[in-house]
Amino acid sequence: MDAIRWEGKTLALLDQTRLPVEEVWISYQDYRPVADAIRTMVVRGAPAIGVTAAYAYCLAALAGDNLEEAKEVLAASRPTAVNLFWALERMARKAQDCGGDAQSLIAEAVEIHREDVEMCKAMGLYGASVVPEHARILTHCNAGALATGGYGTALGVIRAAHQQGKVQMVYADETRPLLQGARLTAYELVSDHIPATLIADNMAASLMAKGQIDLVVVGCDRMAANGDFANKIGTYSVAVNAHHHGVPFYVALPCSTIDLSLADGSGIPIEERDKNEVRTLYGVQTAPAEVEVYNPAFDVTPHSLVTGIITEKGVIYPPFRENLARLFG
Amino acid sequence: MDAIRWEGKTLALLDQTRLPVEEVWISYQDYRPVADAIRTMVVRGAPAIGVTAAYAYCLAALAGDNLEEAKEVLAASRPTAVNLFWALERMARKAQDCGGDAQSLIAEAVEIHREDVEMCKAMGLYGASVVPEHARILTHCNAGALATGGYGTALGVIRAAHQQGKVQMVYADETRPLLQGARLTAYELVSDHIPATLIADNMAASLMAKGQIDLVVVGCDRMAANGDFANKIGTYSVAVNAHHHGVPFYVALPCSTIDLSLADGSGIPIEERDKNEVRTLYGVQTAPAEVEVYNPAFDVTPHSLVTGIITEKGVIYPPFRENLARLFG
Repeated sequence: MDAIRWEGKTLALLDQTRLPVEEVWISYQDYRPVADAIRTMVVRGAPAIGVTAAYAYCLAALAGDNLEEAKEVLAASRPTAVNLFWALERMARKAQDCGGDAQSLIAEAVEIHREDVEMCKAMGLYGASVVPEHARILTHCNAGALATGGYGTALGVIRAAHQQGKVQMVYADETRPLLQGARLTAYELVSDHIPATLIADNMAASLMAKGQIDLVVVGCDRMAANGDFANKIGTYSVAVNAHHHGVPFYVALPCSTIDLSLADGSGIPIEERDKNEVRTLYGVQTAPAEVEVYNPAFDVTPHSLVTGIITEKGVIYPPFRENLARLFG
Repeated sequence: MDAIRWEGKTLALLDQTRLPVEEVWISYQDYRPVADAIRTMVVRGAPAIGVTAAYAYCLAALAGDNLEEAKEVLAASRPTAVNLFWALERMARKAQDCGGDAQSLIAEAVEIHREDVEMCKAMGLYGASVVPEHARILTHCNAGALATGGYGTALGVIRAAHQQGKVQMVYADETRPLLQGARLTAYELVSDHIPATLIADNMAASLMAKGQIDLVVVGCDRMAANGDFANKIGTYSVAVNAHHHGVPFYVALPCSTIDLSLADGSGIPIEERDKNEVRTLYGVQTAPAEVEVYNPAFDVTPHSLVTGIITEKGVIYPPFRENLARLFG
């Protein structure tokens, strides 16, 4: 399963807002509508946003657009996932090296994409080693093939563990308000014939209380140097509940999601999205139009609630600040 | 605001499945469709179900139906809220006393309804005493006028505290899957001009982490003798999070919701509802049709996570088993 394809001179994105009911691909030859596609979540997930931005930068080079301006427009599309800025910085460095040559830039974007899939597979194998036999695993939001260049971070771990015959059941939080768990994670799991049960976000705690969750694994949009991390809203509540019930809680991410410039999670900018995402669903009104809404797209989970960090270089345990630093050393 | 009206020989229910977009009243002269109305949640909320069942019993008496059979059919409509059985037992005792005389039974049902509103108002005043000034209060699901004979249990506390000028903001969990918080609590709060902010269930923890919740108050569908209680799914997760963040957690209920026959929460039957409640919303498909779903309508919160129990007789503090017993003594 993939959601991002480079087709010579065109970027094609699977429109994730229309899944699982319709599979519609949209083609782009201009970087500006790609920035809109990131903003409106046609494509979402930190690594996928990074890969997409790299290709969009190539579209700008092919069209002879100002690359500095393209970088700025793309960087302004969403604030929280650090992979966006990481990929754009890498492309800008490449542009400096190659004098903005479009084919060289395309090769770099393809390489970012290829590396992303490789990192997910490495993460999957490292992560599978912490999954017990007959595991009942909870995940939140979608950190799957659709959220990355392919294979997935948290779902990469689940895919690898499933291939090893260790997965009894995956419980997928539906993940309000935009239902990435119901629409995307359930879709990926069903497509791959991995045993899956969908729940509303508020049901996870009661499964933990009944001893029905052995492990939690989630993705990440940005991690600070001490292991605090931002991920889809609701991750923090899952972490608090896992801690309360003694359920191991893992976060899976490539090193490009770690932002060493931030000492802790308090510096991670948290996007607030349109209030109508909560007041309506698919255009159907579900609440009084006048009611005030608070709609943060992410929350921050402190490292104290994290059992281990699964990266493409191995699984990191506390003390996280020291062990993450060693990763980059 | 009310949702249950007795009109001489007819029971009228406000169809809560169509709120907040439409206000539609449905009239009943036969008890059997009232059982369906309870099952499909035209009317919901433990005290409201009790009042409705009492009136439905009167419809059976007026129609000359077999009252034993009517009691059985109505009792089978939903399993968790104990007020349903409590109200039917009280009506059956009255039927025995008055030889099934319809007018006497109607008087009893009207009395149950009147008492329910009175109890909510008493609960409101007792509960308001634990609310601090400038309170930012979180509630889950709808324990309001719509869930009771009128005024509400948890929302009764909020209404009384608001009248005393103590409420800065009420945060309403939308309460998936049926969105009683978005559709009903937000509607009641907006109608009463009480400051209200709607959130998805998974956002409550992040508000607590930021110190933006001073107090949680929820309703109850059934409480065991030790203070363990069942309430709408998601309540338990809120309680765990409140505990983690040191936020006081109160549950408001009339004594008729306490089931002294159960030593603890493990004996409370938990209804599981249709899987399509999670896979779809208002008929719109939001997940793959093939995905398995777990959809419990309630969860059980242990008394260890409860700060205080607000009843019409006062606020009860630990040790709950002893202090609840004294209430009935």
